[in-house]
Amino acid sequence: MAVRLDRSSGLTDQERIDWLRLIRSEHVGPRTFRALLDRFGSAAAALDALPDLARRGGAARPGRICSRAEAERELEGARALGARLIGLSEPDYPPALAAIADPPPLLAVRGNVSALRLPQIAVIGSRNASAAGLKIAQTLAHDIGAAGFGIVSGLARGIDAAAHRGSLASGTVAVLAGGQDVIYPPEHAGLLDDILQQGAAVSEMPLGWELRAADFPRRNRLISGLALAIVVVEAAKRSGSLITARLALDQGREVFAVPGSPLDPRAEGTNALLKQGATLVTEASDVVSVVTPIAGLPLQLGEQDDRQSAPPAGDPDADQRAAITGLLGPAPVSIDDLVRLSKASPAIVRMVLLELDLAGRLERHGNGLVSLI
Amino acid sequence: MAVRLDRSSGLTDQERIDWLRLIRSEHVGPRTFRALLDRFGSAAAALDALPDLARRGGAARPGRICSRAEAERELEGARALGARLIGLSEPDYPPALAAIADPPPLLAVRGNVSALRLPQIAVIGSRNASAAGLKIAQTLAHDIGAAGFGIVSGLARGIDAAAHRGSLASGTVAVLAGGQDVIYPPEHAGLLDDILQQGAAVSEMPLGWELRAADFPRRNRLISGLALAIVVVEAAKRSGSLITARLALDQGREVFAVPGSPLDPRAEGTNALLKQGATLVTEASDVVSVVTPIAGLPLQLGEQDDRQSAPPAGDPDADQRAAITGLLGPAPVSIDDLVRLSKASPAIVRMVLLELDLAGRLERHGNGLVSLI
Repeated sequence: MAVRLDRSSGLTDQERIDWLRLIRSEHVGPRTFRALLDRFGSAAAALDALPDLARRGGAARPGRICSRAEAERELEGARALGARLIGLSEPDYPPALAAIADPPPLLAVRGNVSALRLPQIAVIGSRNASAAGLKIAQTLAHDIGAAGFGIVSGLARGIDAAAHRGSLASGTVAVLAGGQDVIYPPEHAGLLDDILQQGAAVSEMPLGWELRAADFPRRNRLISGLALAIVVVEAAKRSGSLITARLALDQGREVFAVPGSPLDPRAEGTNALLKQGATLVTEASDVVSVVTPIAGLPLQLGEQDDRQSAPPAGDPDADQRAAITGLLGPAPVSIDDLVRLSKASPAIVRMVLLELDLAGRLERHGNGLVSLI
Repeated sequence: MAVRLDRSSGLTDQERIDWLRLIRSEHVGPRTFRALLDRFGSAAAALDALPDLARRGGAARPGRICSRAEAERELEGARALGARLIGLSEPDYPPALAAIADPPPLLAVRGNVSALRLPQIAVIGSRNASAAGLKIAQTLAHDIGAAGFGIVSGLARGIDAAAHRGSLASGTVAVLAGGQDVIYPPEHAGLLDDILQQGAAVSEMPLGWELRAADFPRRNRLISGLALAIVVVEAAKRSGSLITARLALDQGREVFAVPGSPLDPRAEGTNALLKQGATLVTEASDVVSVVTPIAGLPLQLGEQDDRQSAPPAGDPDADQRAAITGLLGPAPVSIDDLVRLSKASPAIVRMVLLELDLAGRLERHGNGLVSLI
């Protein structure tokens, strides 16, 4: 679907509804969405094919398909909230995010869409931050913002909130873990109103989505994905900020960290990042000097993309399906190995994986690794 | 003087007196000492030549030569204090120190000479240290010491004292800025007594030498020179510890630094070192894992050595002396350029420089650069 994903074409109203139905259907995530669009040429054709694909993948019952009425209700709800749903193929979709391996097909955006056109730097860290950490986050965000960058963060307590506050005037982007109508933590509703004056809030989740723990790492890939670089201000040993740093590296983003005393547990995570090669930051210029030369360059995928634009394949036969499924188990294997061992064509292997995916039986781990659930 | 400097030969009593007279004579520093030994084959012959060399170098009056009686008094005083004067050519001379560009020809050592045989790590930092810094220094020194390394430091208040205290049991070396009988700061006399139980105190200065500001950077080259690596625990922006780090780099030593908050002025120097490529330390294993593989290897000179073992040259004639001196001025020039521009042999150029040196008219900057004073 080279035409669909070259970011030149707006979606028609009908296409936007089809895209929304497809991504909101059961077992369809961002990677599966892309694979379906590649295979069937449009979201409408993919929606038609879903029940049969899931059945062939061995689903006990076909996954629930989002109805046209539901999709229209979500679009109407978004409009009422002042949010736009921007498609991956559209010019307003943030280009850095479009370059990750699993971009949301539709991104709900409130506030100033133009704030997303700035090159972005993520500033993140502990919820349980020290006074010094809060001051550093706010100062860094202010100064990096003044240098012409947008500041992305997660609206969380602590470092995230300080980063947003420091960059309210220059433009800051809050990435929500839930839908646009679910503000977490609730006491940051006023901060979000302030953010929306110059900046924006983005979400890939449906309106009304109730937050679960798994939503935070999923959201974190958007924080690093929107940004050219992430700056971790304070982070304990095992913390969400370190997960974001890991995702950022997978996405080929620069990782910066603020140092702290070895005796300060809130610096254990950032010091560990520095030992692993993150760039040390004490002031905004440490970030700006590194990021400015790359701000205009196209982003390169850090993670190998397991989607390839190949001509649509014929359907796999029962023997092929059995052979490929037989090679899969709970341990992740690479799609390349599946192709080699099954002696089937890459297109046939991808098709079988798509069927399993839609049957809710496949997990995709990134880097071309898959396993059975 | 390959024989003299290959560290296999002990000095006779007579030679030790001659060496001491030579290094204690006016205008003779460690580099000049080596040049004289190269040219004249022995300290005794060099002492005989000094007045004539200084006169040829244009000295208004010849430099004061240390008398035999003075040297004997110093040796006797050292013995009374329990200090040995170890020559650069002797087996007990610390091999790391022998590898720097300007090692003291004689090193006065009190305490356990065997402590100097351990591979050494310097742990240094601010006198005005924080409680956290003191704790980190003491813990690092203890743990690095327990891993089989000696800990070198400067007996100063703050980080230095904490480093010594942490490694009293495993062996620690105090490098004094003054003579062995000048304990600075005076309140560390008790700490020094404790150090001498297992460790040692070393000095290149004569007994009774009164401390001046210039003695500290000179001493600092011995701290880094004795060590395979230096660890800077806390350091303000412009501080003596950063000078030592600079010297350590010139000497080809590893530089480690402990990170701190960007808001803590005592971490400005260490964070700056980390930005310049020092290795980040939060615990002893960060140092030990890097240093252990190189602990048995011969040290390489970081700084280019401007001394070469060449056959003794004839004396320069008046024209050569005038030509070479005419090429010198207050701006440092390289000895290589002097050879090229004067068309004299390297041996003749070195001889003229030696004469100027002994006349108190030459400054040697290291890296083969010299200028007129």
